[in-house]
Amino acid sequence: MAHTGSSEIDQLIQLLARLPGLGPRSARRAVLHLIKRKDALMSPLAIAMQRAVEAVLICRTCGNIDTISPCAICADQRRAESGMLIVVEDVSDLWALERAGIGQVRYHVLGGVLSPLDGVGPEDLAIDALIARADEFSEIVLAFNATVEGQTTAHYITERIGGSGVKITRLAHGVPVGGELDYLDEGTLFQALKARTAL
Amino acid sequence: MAHTGSSEIDQLIQLLARLPGLGPRSARRAVLHLIKRKDALMSPLAIAMQRAVEAVLICRTCGNIDTISPCAICADQRRAESGMLIVVEDVSDLWALERAGIGQVRYHVLGGVLSPLDGVGPEDLAIDALIARADEFSEIVLAFNATVEGQTTAHYITERIGGSGVKITRLAHGVPVGGELDYLDEGTLFQALKARTAL
Repeated sequence: MAHTGSSEIDQLIQLLARLPGLGPRSARRAVLHLIKRKDALMSPLAIAMQRAVEAVLICRTCGNIDTISPCAICADQRRAESGMLIVVEDVSDLWALERAGIGQVRYHVLGGVLSPLDGVGPEDLAIDALIARADEFSEIVLAFNATVEGQTTAHYITERIGGSGVKITRLAHGVPVGGELDYLDEGTLFQALKARTAL
Repeated sequence: MAHTGSSEIDQLIQLLARLPGLGPRSARRAVLHLIKRKDALMSPLAIAMQRAVEAVLICRTCGNIDTISPCAICADQRRAESGMLIVVEDVSDLWALERAGIGQVRYHVLGGVLSPLDGVGPEDLAIDALIARADEFSEIVLAFNATVEGQTTAHYITERIGGSGVKITRLAHGVPVGGELDYLDEGTLFQALKARTAL
């Protein structure tokens, strides 16, 4: 119970508290903020959310989120020219790569990574769909997190696609831009030295 | 720009990022979370928000937020019996006191505290409304934050009401329940010793 005395406000707090990064306290603060900005923020947000409920689709080709399917990225013919397909775990990774301005590429969203401990097997991910479209591309970049699960998934996909003639690559390991050596783990430093480039 | 490729999703991210405690990154995470739970969370949240836009009012007596005015607290006759009025800075403080289960009291929300540096004077706060209803109560508790502005406001109100025969009190200073002495500031420790109670 949020104990505000009004069931409408309590319900709004409880729903907002279910968002990642918000708890009961920050949800209460957010609701007060919204109520004080009813016309400037709460009303537009309610409308934007309702519109998203009605309009948002999952792209049937790549798994991206958009209001059209195939999504704007899959529909953009200029993106076919590079011949590069980047496989990501989640839509948030796709958005991150797009923000980085990496150019005209296409994506495939797996919807997770293999994790036997969590009961996530190949059939739970969009791996068959990836293999079905793999031969449309000349290079497939496996852009997973540098975790055990991410690397396991990369190996599994490499084995499934391997031999089809498509070049399979992964993101480079190294020093993050702006990062300090002193704060980096040994594994990253080792990889960064191994993959050093000429100046 | 949020660069998701869809203006509906970008707009939702930008609006959510304006909530306190959320930035662009957490707003993106929240939107993905919402899209994946469209029926279970995003749709109910859109409806709850729209309902709050339509229903929420500011109580004309005390400044509380509710869907009726006078609010449920002001309308509750049992709360008149204690004769206690608690003056708070913001509605969130009222909610916090209600959660603490302090019993049948009434409230008055000032809408801020005096702050000459920020240009907040007595005419910007609900101080005249407080003075108009002060004589309905036997005790007025000034429950402000223990900041310079909070204490200034308490002194100002005490001077304005003083002489009318109403008892004016403030919250006790002391060691927070569960708090460790070693982590407390000297001011609090000094006040806690001064106001020590018999065991």
